[in-house]
Amino acid sequence: MMRNILIAQSGGPTAAINATMAGVIDFANKSKEVNKIYGGLHGIKGIIEGNLIEIGDIFKDKHNLDLLCQTPSSALGSCRYKLKDDKAIFDQIIEVFKKFEIGYFIYIGGNDSMDTVLKLSNYCNQIGLDSVKIMGVPKTVDNDLCVTDHTPGFGSAAKYVATTTAELFCDLRVYDMPSVAIVEIMGRNSGWLTASAALSGINCGDSPNLIYVPEVAFDDDKFIEDVKEELAKRPYVLIALSEGLKDLNGNYICEKLTTRGTDDFGHKMLSGAGKYAEHLIADSLGCRIRSIELSLMQRAAGHISSLTDIEESKLLGAKVLERALEGHTAEMSIITRESSDPYKAVIGTTHVENVANHEKFVPLEWLNPEKNNVTKEMIEYIYPLIQGEYKTLYENGIPKHIRLY
Amino acid sequence: MMRNILIAQSGGPTAAINATMAGVIDFANKSKEVNKIYGGLHGIKGIIEGNLIEIGDIFKDKHNLDLLCQTPSSALGSCRYKLKDDKAIFDQIIEVFKKFEIGYFIYIGGNDSMDTVLKLSNYCNQIGLDSVKIMGVPKTVDNDLCVTDHTPGFGSAAKYVATTTAELFCDLRVYDMPSVAIVEIMGRNSGWLTASAALSGINCGDSPNLIYVPEVAFDDDKFIEDVKEELAKRPYVLIALSEGLKDLNGNYICEKLTTRGTDDFGHKMLSGAGKYAEHLIADSLGCRIRSIELSLMQRAAGHISSLTDIEESKLLGAKVLERALEGHTAEMSIITRESSDPYKAVIGTTHVENVANHEKFVPLEWLNPEKNNVTKEMIEYIYPLIQGEYKTLYENGIPKHIRLY
Repeated sequence: MMRNILIAQSGGPTAAINATMAGVIDFANKSKEVNKIYGGLHGIKGIIEGNLIEIGDIFKDKHNLDLLCQTPSSALGSCRYKLKDDKAIFDQIIEVFKKFEIGYFIYIGGNDSMDTVLKLSNYCNQIGLDSVKIMGVPKTVDNDLCVTDHTPGFGSAAKYVATTTAELFCDLRVYDMPSVAIVEIMGRNSGWLTASAALSGINCGDSPNLIYVPEVAFDDDKFIEDVKEELAKRPYVLIALSEGLKDLNGNYICEKLTTRGTDDFGHKMLSGAGKYAEHLIADSLGCRIRSIELSLMQRAAGHISSLTDIEESKLLGAKVLERALEGHTAEMSIITRESSDPYKAVIGTTHVENVANHEKFVPLEWLNPEKNNVTKEMIEYIYPLIQGEYKTLYENGIPKHIRLY
Repeated sequence: MMRNILIAQSGGPTAAINATMAGVIDFANKSKEVNKIYGGLHGIKGIIEGNLIEIGDIFKDKHNLDLLCQTPSSALGSCRYKLKDDKAIFDQIIEVFKKFEIGYFIYIGGNDSMDTVLKLSNYCNQIGLDSVKIMGVPKTVDNDLCVTDHTPGFGSAAKYVATTTAELFCDLRVYDMPSVAIVEIMGRNSGWLTASAALSGINCGDSPNLIYVPEVAFDDDKFIEDVKEELAKRPYVLIALSEGLKDLNGNYICEKLTTRGTDDFGHKMLSGAGKYAEHLIADSLGCRIRSIELSLMQRAAGHISSLTDIEESKLLGAKVLERALEGHTAEMSIITRESSDPYKAVIGTTHVENVANHEKFVPLEWLNPEKNNVTKEMIEYIYPLIQGEYKTLYENGIPKHIRLY
């Protein structure tokens, strides 16, 4: 009888994805039905190659589980790999499951990973293999998964974005001259994380004067007018915009500007949405302008994780294992919000087909009429998710991380 | 008799410059010789314009002093203003001093600010005005001031850089494919802050594989060879480099690459040293490359200040006021290191002419023979400065800041 667990992680890392893994392991440690715990390195790609490591022993020590929760990015590595409908590949995975006596496969990831969970569970069903339960746990800083109220990793990234934007305002306002800062934030198709910059103003009052999300086409001329209008009202203007903005013709604006060497290497490099926006206003405004990319820091800044996010991530991990042990398969754990103030949410599951290959976008009614900022509904939605500070353990002046490979 | 204090801040903001101001105010509150406390808005530029606010009352409340210590950037605003040898300007400043009955002027800043302290105190001496004591306190994330062992603000920025680099390593290593990350760090002429990325490896072992500082000319071909060599040894390579790197001809590399719109606006925008380095290897390596600018975050990230830095910054502020009250003028407070392990440092003062208009560079013997990384002496020097975490107060999920204007 196959009674071992296999955990793997996939897609872009977040600050909370390891907390989910910790939740699975913690629940497994308390269960009598689980034997060994394996980690699959580099997601499904590594599993196909049989690249598994045993991780049960390390995490018998509670301290290591705590370290795992504060280690950003995917402790088991990751992959970007869309599983094809290829019987040979499926069989290869099933072989690995059999070899390692896997009874429960927990895959932590975003859209593509849920597609993997769906396809793999369908295949098991098709061949009549019901001794392996295949479950998914959401994660993504983009917060673009359906059914679940929000995704693990988003709250921590939003806390980073709100905090950093507040700090950038402190920096921006010091000079006695007009200044514009453009902050480029992650979100290829959805504007949730960019919208979270609005929470920077919750204490001191300075929130982005303009916010642009990819759900709304970006109009160069309108943008220039917007900035001029804001600069007429105040000496410093901060603009938050998504990396994934598209122009009126549906082209990514980050691809409209290229970087070239003066010696003409000829190599085309994308400059990013922020740089493009900077470029648009550089000539016409004639004031201090700086574009700032929050880059990988916004998803990797484990030192400023949201306690709410880390706790929920653990619960979501525990939940799928609980359901798997009860005999369920092809499910993804979800968060259902019961109220925002006071914040109340319950953890449940949904069939993974409700999530795989769907995307959740920012509702247009949570944007102002001009579609260049957010409404209070958006702020009320994000607010509870950034609450609480995870108590990071430091050693030698920097946060301590755990390494599994 | 003039017995009021005037405090002002100048130059690029840091996460610790307000702690220095808190140190001055705290000492003033305990002294019987001080009447009112004024803040000069936007540095010497604001003082010339008579732009002073009274701040004594706010800071009778100890809680507000704590908030000041955790508020990044210059709470009194800043300026970039090099005082000219112009009698009319000096007289204007003296008029402001007289009008507000200033007995002590404390100027917190970098090189240019110390030049202001020097010129102003020389002028007072020249006209026989000895009732105003003019003192300086260092600050700069660049750590490029002489005489003092290090500068306030550097430790916090170094802690941010080391932490962020450690987190970026967590992100970089997840994919099972060759990856290169280039991290661009502040430091126009000196490499201290860039060198501090080396402390990322202190717990887990991953420190930048290559480090380039502006004290060494940047050779394109050598750089490409360096990266190839490192990539042959391991699948992921992280490079830390200073924004201020210059090529063999003495030209800033950040100016060698320009950004142009496809529609040919014709506006030249500098792409930065990191982008230039990315550009150099993009074609020849054929692997995943990303350049990341730590931008304003490295000087504004008050949420991850070094406790050592904040405490020393306060002491340096207190010290100059103590000396001023004793009748000294034209001094800057300094830190003298007595030992690194255990760390022991004393606070003193030096004549400001020893500091003004001088720059402190990274000693070449603290770089490896290839001049593309640092030695353990560098790490031992920086290590004590990033120790300890300032206990940031959060409200509504983000750090609380104080606003004075």
